[in-house]
Parts: sequence; structure tokens; C-alpha cells
Amino acid sequence: MSQSRLSALTWREVRRAGERGIALLPIGSQEQHAGHLPMGTDTLLVEAVVDRALDVLGREDSAPELVRLPVLPFGHSPHHLFAAAVSLSAATLGAVLEEVLDSLAASGHRRVVVVNGHGGNDEVMRLAVKRFALRSPVTVAACSYWTLTAGEEEAGRPEVTPGHAGWFETSLMLAAHPELVRTPVPARASVEPPPLFDNPPYAGLTVERHGEWERVDGSTDDASDADAARGARLLDDRARGLARAIRAFDTATR
Amino acid sequence: MSQSRLSALTWREVRRAGERGIALLPIGSQEQHAGHLPMGTDTLLVEAVVDRALDVLGREDSAPELVRLPVLPFGHSPHHLFAAAVSLSAATLGAVLEEVLDSLAASGHRRVVVVNGHGGNDEVMRLAVKRFALRSPVTVAACSYWTLTAGEEEAGRPEVTPGHAGWFETSLMLAAHPELVRTPVPARASVEPPPLFDNPPYAGLTVERHGEWERVDGSTDDASDADAARGARLLDDRARGLARAIRAFDTATR
Amino acid sequence: MSQSRLSALTWREVRRAGERGIALLPIGSQEQHAGHLPMGTDTLLVEAVVDRALDVLGREDSAPELVRLPVLPFGHSPHHLFAAAVSLSAATLGAVLEEVLDSLAASGHRRVVVVNGHGGNDEVMRLAVKRFALRSPVTVAACSYWTLTAGEEEAGRPEVTPGHAGWFETSLMLAAHPELVRTPVPARASVEPPPLFDNPPYAGLTVERHGEWERVDGSTDDASDADAARGARLLDDRARGLARAIRAFDTATR
Amino acid sequence: MSQSRLSALTWREVRRAGERGIALLPIGSQEQHAGHLPMGTDTLLVEAVVDRALDVLGREDSAPELVRLPVLPFGHSPHHLFAAAVSLSAATLGAVLEEVLDSLAASGHRRVVVVNGHGGNDEVMRLAVKRFALRSPVTVAACSYWTLTAGEEEAGRPEVTPGHAGWFETSLMLAAHPELVRTPVPARASVEPPPLFDNPPYAGLTVERHGEWERVDGSTDDASDADAARGARLLDDRARGLARAIRAFDTATR
Amino acid sequence: MSQSRLSALTWREVRRAGERGIALLPIGSQEQHAGHLPMGTDTLLVEAVVDRALDVLGREDSAPELVRLPVLPFGHSPHHLFAAAVSLSAATLGAVLEEVLDSLAASGHRRVVVVNGHGGNDEVMRLAVKRFALRSPVTVAACSYWTLTAGEEEAGRPEVTPGHAGWFETSLMLAAHPELVRTPVPARASVEPPPLFDNPPYAGLTVERHGEWERVDGSTDDASDADAARGARLLDDRARGLARAIRAFDTATR
Amino acid sequence: MSQSRLSALTWREVRRAGERGIALLPIGSQEQHAGHLPMGTDTLLVEAVVDRALDVLGREDSAPELVRLPVLPFGHSPHHLFAAAVSLSAATLGAVLEEVLDSLAASGHRRVVVVNGHGGNDEVMRLAVKRFALRSPVTVAACSYWTLTAGEEEAGRPEVTPGHAGWFETSLMLAAHPELVRTPVPARASVEPPPLFDNPPYAGLTVERHGEWERVDGSTDDASDADAARGARLLDDRARGLARAIRAFDTATR
Repeated sequence: MSQSRLSALTWREVRRAGERGIALLPIGSQEQHAGHLPMGTDTLLVEAVVDRALDVLGREDSAPELVRLPVLPFGHSPHHLFAAAVSLSAATLGAVLEEVLDSLAASGHRRVVVVNGHGGNDEVMRLAVKRFALRSPVTVAACSYWTLTAGEEEAGRPEVTPGHAGWFETSLMLAAHPELVRTPVPARASVEPPPLFDNPPYAGLTVERHGEWERVDGSTDDASDADAARGARLLDDRARGLARAIRAFDTATR
Repeated sequence: MSQSRLSALTWREVRRAGERGIALLPIGSQEQHAGHLPMGTDTLLVEAVVDRALDVLGREDSAPELVRLPVLPFGHSPHHLFAAAVSLSAATLGAVLEEVLDSLAASGHRRVVVVNGHGGNDEVMRLAVKRFALRSPVTVAACSYWTLTAGEEEAGRPEVTPGHAGWFETSLMLAAHPELVRTPVPARASVEPPPLFDNPPYAGLTVERHGEWERVDGSTDDASDADAARGARLLDDRARGLARAIRAFDTATR
Repeated sequence: MSQSRLSALTWREVRRAGERGIALLPIGSQEQHAGHLPMGTDTLLVEAVVDRALDVLGREDSAPELVRLPVLPFGHSPHHLFAAAVSLSAATLGAVLEEVLDSLAASGHRRVVVVNGHGGNDEVMRLAVKRFALRSPVTVAACSYWTLTAGEEEAGRPEVTPGHAGWFETSLMLAAHPELVRTPVPARASVEPPPLFDNPPYAGLTVERHGEWERVDGSTDDASDADAARGARLLDDRARGLARAIRAFDTATR
Repeated sequence: MSQSRLSALTWREVRRAGERGIALLPIGSQEQHAGHLPMGTDTLLVEAVVDRALDVLGREDSAPELVRLPVLPFGHSPHHLFAAAVSLSAATLGAVLEEVLDSLAASGHRRVVVVNGHGGNDEVMRLAVKRFALRSPVTVAACSYWTLTAGEEEAGRPEVTPGHAGWFETSLMLAAHPELVRTPVPARASVEPPPLFDNPPYAGLTVERHGEWERVDGSTDDASDADAARGARLLDDRARGLARAIRAFDTATR
Repeated sequence: MSQSRLSALTWREVRRAGERGIALLPIGSQEQHAGHLPMGTDTLLVEAVVDRALDVLGREDSAPELVRLPVLPFGHSPHHLFAAAVSLSAATLGAVLEEVLDSLAASGHRRVVVVNGHGGNDEVMRLAVKRFALRSPVTVAACSYWTLTAGEEEAGRPEVTPGHAGWFETSLMLAAHPELVRTPVPARASVEPPPLFDNPPYAGLTVERHGEWERVDGSTDDASDADAARGARLLDDRARGLARAIRAFDTATR
Repeated sequence: MSQSRLSALTWREVRRAGERGIALLPIGSQEQHAGHLPMGTDTLLVEAVVDRALDVLGREDSAPELVRLPVLPFGHSPHHLFAAAVSLSAATLGAVLEEVLDSLAASGHRRVVVVNGHGGNDEVMRLAVKRFALRSPVTVAACSYWTLTAGEEEAGRPEVTPGHAGWFETSLMLAAHPELVRTPVPARASVEPPPLFDNPPYAGLTVERHGEWERVDGSTDDASDADAARGARLLDDRARGLARAIRAFDTATR
């Protein structure tokens, strides 16, 4: 069992790790998170989950060998460009992911897990891992950190998970980076109608309306009762969920 | 209330319909569906659902004005190129969708619904509608037909819906195009382990493994007990689901 | 001898047909055709010619094995975007054609015929088939349906063939889809000067002027005396021309 | 009346000329022309025709003001890459033409004539001028030099005009650049069957077969009886044809 | 005077900072650095220089307001793909830079400084900042950290600065991250001839030879006598150089 | 020893020359050069240097075999589009260079020298030759003509070399193409502050400011005392520098 950061390895160590290990690529964003959370929220949270998961695995016997790549700090956030986002287009983010993945394959890696911290990256990440597995003899997994749960103690509020800059993300940030949360978090007036992207008029239908993010002022739900303790439990649950998912991936693809 | 096909309208009629109507764009694929279903299955089924939904709406009062575009018969099927698929790349399919949507906006349409018949198109469709709504003053919906249900009588088997070339699609084809199903449908030997793309090792994880579609011989589940009567009910349920979703979209965006 | 539609075949049947057959790909457009013809005119006419040609060949002995693909209903019509066209850019149409052709080559097809229904697709189609034959071991033919003639009985008016939304296309539509022609077709006032794209100032010179299609109101010649009977003969002539061309192609490339 | 070369003008002179003049852009290729003609044949011939046409116009009263751009010496010759061609892809040649044309529009030019010396450039040139006229308030003409004729004395052999590296091009080169023709030109054995790209099996059908240029050894017809005197008359005829076409374009677009 | 990290700011704070501040974007790479330095060397060193420069400015009066972006940890390293690099293509890196810069302009930033840690990024960075300043009303600076010097005490060896994985970079890493340097650094046998990219045969000529990086085993000069103390002075000199450059940029563009 | 122009060779001669010779590709621009120099200045000067260098080598024993390609007359000049430049984008110029270089590799060339006449082409040229040497088994050199010097007699003014449309270029043009220089060259008023792109506020920093070229009226320094005799010496020095660089390249790569 071993863990390492790719940026700290020499190239021959990277090659050796690639032979039997699993590469972990976290991806985030820099985008508005209302008035109380920082631009880097998604990046900070995905790193928090990944590093906690590595800690969990590091305490276990016979965990798979893991090489963590540096987080990609920029994501696909065109819907937040009205509010200071630093955004890559879908084509560019897709190219970055494909080229990073191809580089890993070129250095001998055969197993990769991409862990995402930003909803807007989801489709691009899925397309990238599909294309990667078609052109290279690899097995690649992808997830958004909030979808994984250890499931032992449910502390969350599924109806607002993950949302954007609401109760869930704020609770996690209060646990992981309390110094970066502007408190007290003001109550958010209810927006009527709620945003169509978050509340489609029919189950199974995705709806996008021009100007919707501006209309709802950049968040999906009230964060004023976010809770550091529950955030810590939620974060821990996701970290243990990711750790288990990595083990399960290792077992299925060894 | 009125319904029409864009290909049958003159250009001034298209413009008039665009002012207050909803444009419907069905998209499909041409790809392998095991040994008993035809290449056009996804295209045929999405058209079956769309046309039945139009029939439902056509019998109702005050249904929204609808303009149905010709189905796009080719989709994103790189994972089936080993088996005679006619496939567009993600970039090309994305460009086709964006240019069709932009054309509709240029002719004055402000509301569009994309209805998809092929799982592999999903991410590309989602990215396309998101980008469209960001750059144009429109509201656009997207769905894959199997995710919509009227919910009144559940005749299906959720654990294999939609799958690929399995019980669900075969039942629907027996209802919609029985002459195109090669019967009797042979039983499919169980494949061990089941494909990772269909059975991820941990909930919330997407896994893609090189060569998996070839390994599992191109289908996800046994179709030998597919059933025309249940297929008819499932098809009808999806058609009524789509009809209701269109109404709900109309109400929410009028 | 056999004929089939690719969308109705299983993938193994497609592969078998590819070994010795010829794939037929019709391509059309959705674009303005003045006030009396529908948006789908080019698509409807190319399908009418292709299907009639298949009927001709189907009645003959020892005709080549043919696999007809679904028509591509969208073409390159940027010059008609001012009037509700649904248009693909040249780059995107080119990519669609190349990827469809590459898919056919991947499934073992060695002979393809592309039949075009829209003048604006011409250059893109020619580039696509040239590139295809350079990179793949195939023989590929391309034509626009109006350029082929059986030549036995000339019923047409070469000086307005094909034109756009004029006498030729209207006559054919009166024969193929009379229910879609808005009649009586109003007489078209002569436009002075006639459009430069249709009447270059010197033989051999192609001239494009900004805004010319708007200036001439979207058609090239008067269609008020279009004639269903002559349209039927012209359509039949093209269908027999295409049938002969396919036979000649088969003979030359067997 | 005035004529100038863009490369010899200062930028303010280019702007002034753009206000009422016509810009002339010759485009050529560097590609195999059998064993007796040089790689630059198409470039040399298009420049010969353009410069002779300018001489003709220079001797006339009230000819339009003309600004000749430097010839683009590289064209689209992928079919000759097997034989030392220096070739741009269609996408790149198209981009070059579009950006040169856009630059001219940006400097105030409203009328441009593109004169082509290489058959393989044809579709790319046509697409480029169409797109240019759609996005800019310009009028633009395009031609391949051999299609223009003054028509007064026909010295040619239409059945082999222009062909490739055959009687027509060799005769012109003997007139324009005799020192670059390797003589005696050897007789070319008849190739059976003749190349499909030059002899389609049915009128109106374009056919491209993999490997055809190699099979026919790079030329379309016998050049051993090429004739400098007839070449000079043909060249003069094309030059006067181009001069008249430019005048006609000027008149139609003034 | 103030300094901040973009990832820690709320979006309104980013906007306010953009009005009069300067955004700092560090870019690095993940690539082989021989057997003794880690993959992240360039990224670690550019961050070390940037953060020390911020410390210098932070201690001064009336320093400009600065917003530091997260480092881009991946660069353009195709020449190191043979040795486990994680590399973006020039097109993709260029797109990332352009989109990050455009995002900054969209959020109101008018002054940006890009600080580079990897020689292979140089041309891409220069093209990106040039294009940015052409299309946006901004002033943008770019530099590679080793080219800036405070010039007060020269501790370096210009003939091997920066080189690759040699004396200069190793000395800096011994100062900044000694725990990541594998010591003792083995002596490097002289390579004959030295690499053409580092030792062109004529002054002013750039020469690239296929396979040269492999031939010289991934480094340009001997690092066995690298020196932590001199590395600390060199690092400090670059940090103060960057601090002064930022002040000079601020003064020139205020 | 032999020298030739690619455009004058037959394709088999090109192939033979490629086996052991060196291909020379000059690239230029068409862009504003103030009020006294022509648009083609960069192209004319690079051709003057290349042809003089060929003359020098042609008089020497055992010079390498050289094949000179036609000059590319268009370059990357987006910063001069405000003043009638004919400019290719960086992407397009890069594609042209890569495709020309790939064509040379396909015809068997293993050694290429690119000689540049326009500063704006520099980064694009460097990227192109790097990529070329990575993907093909070639050695390729690149230079801008003004950076090479024989160094025997220094006649220049380094502080304004090359500048743009200033003393250096004007002196060279007075030597190479005096008929194209508008004389007397007017004195240029000093511009305060001088352009940031030419006078960065700190050594080692590149700075680009929006609108700077317009502000300084298109030139970098006063050309009124440009001098034909010194221009002739400078031109000769560069030509002999290029000749020596080619010999050194030949020796190093034989």
C-alpha cells in the first residue's frame, strides 16, 4: 500500500506507480458562490473529500496504491460568467481532461479515477472518460463527490444536496474551511418561481432558461441554518464513500 | 391548438409558429441492437413516442402549438463502431444540435424541446441545450424518452430500463414495429462479470472499461421474454408522459 | 439482387451487405422555398428520386445489392437563414458526411453513392467524398439528383433547372407531393437585375453578392406555370437516370 | 484607371484603392505534374494569365482600378501527396482564403476576384467566397482560369482541357515557361480503364476511387504533341477572357 | 495595498479587486526533471517565486492591489511525454489561457500578469497575451520567472540558467523544497554532441531534432554541485525581481 | 553542390533532393509599414536575405544541396489589421506551416530551415518547428533573418534593430528595393510614452497594451536618417550570417 502526489514523484516513480496503481484526478471550479462562500468552494471541497478519503485508506491494510494528481482549479462555469467566474469552455475543459488522461495512459497508467467538485463539469467529465476508455486499454471511473456516500449515518438533507451555495455546500465549508465563510450567512428570500434548472416542471425533463441564474441571485436554497457539525458528518460520509468506491473499483479492475 | 411538421411548412409559417409555439426535435441513432433488433431501434422508438404524444395532445383542448422537426437519424455511438454503427463524434453531434437550435432561434423560436432516443447522446444533448440557453433568449428542455412516465400504471421492469437491446427495448419494438424484430428472440447467456458501465462497483461511480461492449456481446440483459402487450403499455405510458411534460413545459414558460 | 434500409437491418446484416453491396446516402435540407413550397422540398425530392430509382432497379434482373441509409434532413443553407432555414455550417455538414462515410468503411462497406437534393450542399459533398476516397480503400460516387437524366424524353426547361423554388422544383413537387404545394402558385415579378449567383456577368465566373437572396425574394424563376404532368416525367427521368448511374457505378467498380 | 501590386503599396494606398477598386487574388499549388512539368505549374500558369490580363486591361481606356495580391503558392493537393506535393488541407486552405478575404474587407475593399490555377482548390474556393459574401457587405467573384475564354479563336482541345499534366497544361507551359518543360515530352501509354475521376461511368456522377492517381501515374492525357504556338494562343485567349470577365464584373457591381 | 487569493474571495470581492488591482496568474507543468527532481518542479518554483514576491510587496508601502489566481499545474510538455509528463497540447494550453484571461476581463479586470515556470509554455503564453490585448481593453504582462532579476547580487551561473533539471533548478529546489530533491544528486556524464535545442550550431538559429531529449537523458547540464545557499539567493533575487517588475508594471499602466 | 527552386523541379527531382538536401522556407507578411514603406516589406526583405545567402553559398565549394520553396507572402499580423494588413490568424498560420512541413517530410525531406521576415510570426514558427520535430524524424531550424549576423563588420544600430518601419528596415529597403521607398522619409515625432511592447517597464517582462500600435502610429523609431549604404552592409551581413548558419546546420545534422 502506498500513496503519493504525482507532483512530488520523479518520472520513473510515476511510471512504476502506473503499472499497478490508480491515478486520482480531482477537478474543481472558480465561480461565484453567493455572498458568503468563496470562489474556490468547489475546488476546496473536492480536495477536502479526496484528502480525507486518502487518509481513510492510508489507515487501512492492503489499500490500493494511489497517485493523486494536482487538482484542476478551473472548470466549466459559463452560467456564472455574469458573476466573476473563471471558466473554461466545454470544448477546452474536455480537451484538458482528454490530454491529462492520455498523458497518464502514455506513462503506463491503466486505472484512473476522476473526482469532480462542480456540477457544471459533469457532462464534460463523462464524455471525456468514455472517449478515453474507447481509445486506450484502460479502466476509468468518474464521480461527483456528493453522489458518493458511506451510508452509515445520514446527516444530510437530500432535497438540497448538493444545490449551489446553499445549505449543503455551506455546511461542508463551515466544517472544512470555516475561516472562508462570511458569517452570519444571511437568510435567502424565497424566489418565485424557483429556478427551472433546479425545479423542472416535470420529472425527467431538464429545462434551461436564459437568465435564470441571474434571476435567482446565484444560489439554489437558503444557507442561513447551515451547520458546521452536520457539515463535518456529511464531509466524513463522502470521504468514506469515496474511499469505499476506490476500493470497490480496485477490486473490480485488478 | 395546432400541430405541424416543419418540413411541410413554408418559411413564413415556420416563423409564425415560432412566435408562440414549441419546436420538438427528436434525435436517435443507427447502431447495433444485438441480433434481433434493427440498427434504427432508437430512432424508431423515439419517433414512436413523439408521434403518440402528439396524438395525445392533438385530442386535447388548448394544447400548445407544436412544430415537429425531422428526426436526426444519426447519433453518438462510438462504443458501437465495432459493430456497424453509423456514428457521429461528440463534437460533431454537438455542433449539429447547436446549429439546429441556433437556426430555430434565428427564425424566432423561443421554446424548444429535444427528445432523445439513445443513451449515448445524453451528455452531448445536455451540453447543447445549456449552451443554447446561455447564448440565446430561449427556454429549452431535454429528455430521454424512457425517463418520462405518466405513472398511472407501471408495467415495466425498472431494473432493466432502458438497458440496451434487452427486455425493455425489445418489448417496445414488438409493440411499435413487430415486423422488424427477429423472433424468437434467443435467450442471452448471463455474462460474468456483468458490464461495468451497467453495473458499477459502487453506487454513484461511473466506470468505463476498454472493450466492455464487445465482451458482453452488445446487450445488457436477456430479451427472450420480451412482451408485446407490456411493450404497448410501456410505450403508451412514455407517450403520455411526454405529452404531460410538454404541457407542463408550456405552462411554466408561457 | 436485394434492397434494404440500413435502419431495418441488424448489424450483422449490415456487415454482410457491406461486403459486396452499395450504400446509398441521400442528403437534403430544410430551407425556405418561397411562399408555395415547403421547407423540406429538397429532402422530399431527393427521397422521391432515390426511392423511385430503387423501384426501377428492384424490377430489374441482377441489379446490385443496395443498402439505403436514412436521409440526412438538414443541409448547408446559410444563405437562407434570413428565412427560417435550419442550417448546418459547412464544417459541420462536412464532418457529418465524413463520419457517416467513415462509419460505413468501418463496417466493411467499400462502395458508397451520395445523392444530394440541395445545391448548397454540393461543394461540401464533393470535398467529403474526395477525402473519404483518399483515406479509405473505397470507391465513392456523388451526384445532385437533377444532374442525372435518362435522356430518353426531355420534358424539362434546362434554363431553369434546377433553379430554386421555381418552375422545375415546383413541377416535381406537384408530381411527388401535390398536397404540400400551396396553389395557385402566384406569378413572380421579374427581378432586375436578376441575381448574380444565378446570372453571372461572364461565363465561367461565379459571383456572390451580399444580400442577393433577400433582394430576389428567395426564388430564381417564375413557378406559376409549373406542371404536375411534366413534373412527373422529369421526376421519372431523374429516377431512371439515377438507376442507370448506379448500375454503371456498379459495373465500373465491381 | 490604375493597376498596382498590394505588396508595393503603403497601407493608406491600399485603403484608398479599396474604396472603388477590385482586389485580385491568384491562388495556385505546388504539386506533381508528371515527369516533364514542374511542381509550380499551376501557380506559374495562373500568374501568367493574370498578368497578361492586367496587360490587356492596362492598354484599355477606363479599365477598373485593380490591386493584385501576391499569389498563394500552396493549394489543396492531398491526392498528390504520394508524389511530393506541398499541400494544405481543405480546412487550412479555406481558413487562409477566408482570412485573406476578411482582411481585405477590414481594409475597406468591397469587390474581390479570386483566380484559381488548380482544380483541387475549386470547392474550397467556392465555399470561401460564398461565406465571405454572407458575412460581409461585399461582392466577390471566383473562377478557375481555364474556364474563361475570349471565344474569338478556339485553338484548344476541349476534351483534354484542362486535364492534368497533359496536352493543355503542357502547351501553355511551352508558351509561358518553355525553359521549365523537360523535352521531348515522352508519349504516355494509354491507361485502361481511364481514371474514374476523369471519366465517370455516367454523366453527372462524380466518382473517386482510392489509389486512382497512382494507378494512372499522375496525368490524365498524352502531352507528347503539346504545342507552344497553340499554347500561346490558348494562354492569350484565357488572358483576354479574364480581362473581359473583370470588366463585366466591374460593370455589374459598380 | 492589499493582497488576496481569488479562490478565497467572494465574487463581489473579485469584481471590486478587478477595478483597480492586478491579477496574477502563475502557470507551471508536470514533467520529468531527471532522476533527482520531482515532476512538479516548474510549478513549485513558480509558486515559490510568486509567493516570495507577494511577501516582498506585502511589506512595502503603497504596493498595488494584487489578486493571485490558483496556479495552472499542467503545461505544454510534449517533448517530455516519453517520460511520464502530463502535458496539454499547445492548442489546449492556449485555449485555457485565453479563456482564463477572458474570464478576468469579463469580471472587470484590466491588468493581468502571467508568471511562467516552464520554458515549453513560453510561445503559447506570448501568443495568448497578445491576442488578449488585441480583443480586450486590457494591459497584460508575461514573463518566465528566471528572466527577471533584482540584479543586486548575482549569484547564478548564466550559462546554465535555467536549463532543465540542471544546476539552476536543482539549486532552487534545494532552497525551496529540499525534501523533494533526491540526494546526493548523481553527476551527469557529458553528452556529445550536446543537445541541439540547447546548443544551436549558429547564434540566432533555433534547432529542433527528433529524439534529442531522449538522447540526452532529460537534462541539460550537471546538477551534482547544486547548492542550497546559492539557490536561496537566486530564488530571492527572482522574487525581488518579480516584485519590482510588478511595481513597474503598475506604475506604467495605472 | 546544387541549388534549386522547388517550384521549378519535377516531383522526382524534389524527392531526390529531399534525400540529402536542405529545404528552405521563407515566410513574410503583408502589413502596414508606416507611410514610407510598402506592405510587402517583410516578405521582400526575407527574400532578399535568402537569395543573397544562396548566392554566397553558390560561390562556395561543397555547399549543401538546397531547395528553396516559394515564400509564404502572408503572415500573422492581427495587430496591424487596423491598417490594411492581410493577416492570417495564429491558428491558420500554424496550420499552414505544419502542413507545408509535413508535406516535405512526406516527400522524404529530413532537414528544413524556416527563415522568417516578420516578428509577429515568431512564436507561431517556433511552435510549428517544435511540433514538427516531435512527430517526424527530421531536424528543423528556424530563425528570423535579423537575428543572424556574420559579425565581421557591425554597421547597425542594435537599439533599433529590427524595430518596425524604422531606421533598420528602411535602410535595408533603401538597399534592396529603393524604388519602393517613399522619400524623403519624414521625421517621426517622438511618442511619449514609447510603446510598451517595445519598451517594457522592466527587463524580462513582455507587456501588451490594447490600442498601442494605433497610439504610436505604426512604427517604433524614426527612419528619416535611414541610409542605403549602411542598409546594404546590414543586408550583406545578414545574408552572410544566414549562409554560415546554413552551413553550420548542415555540418551539425549531416
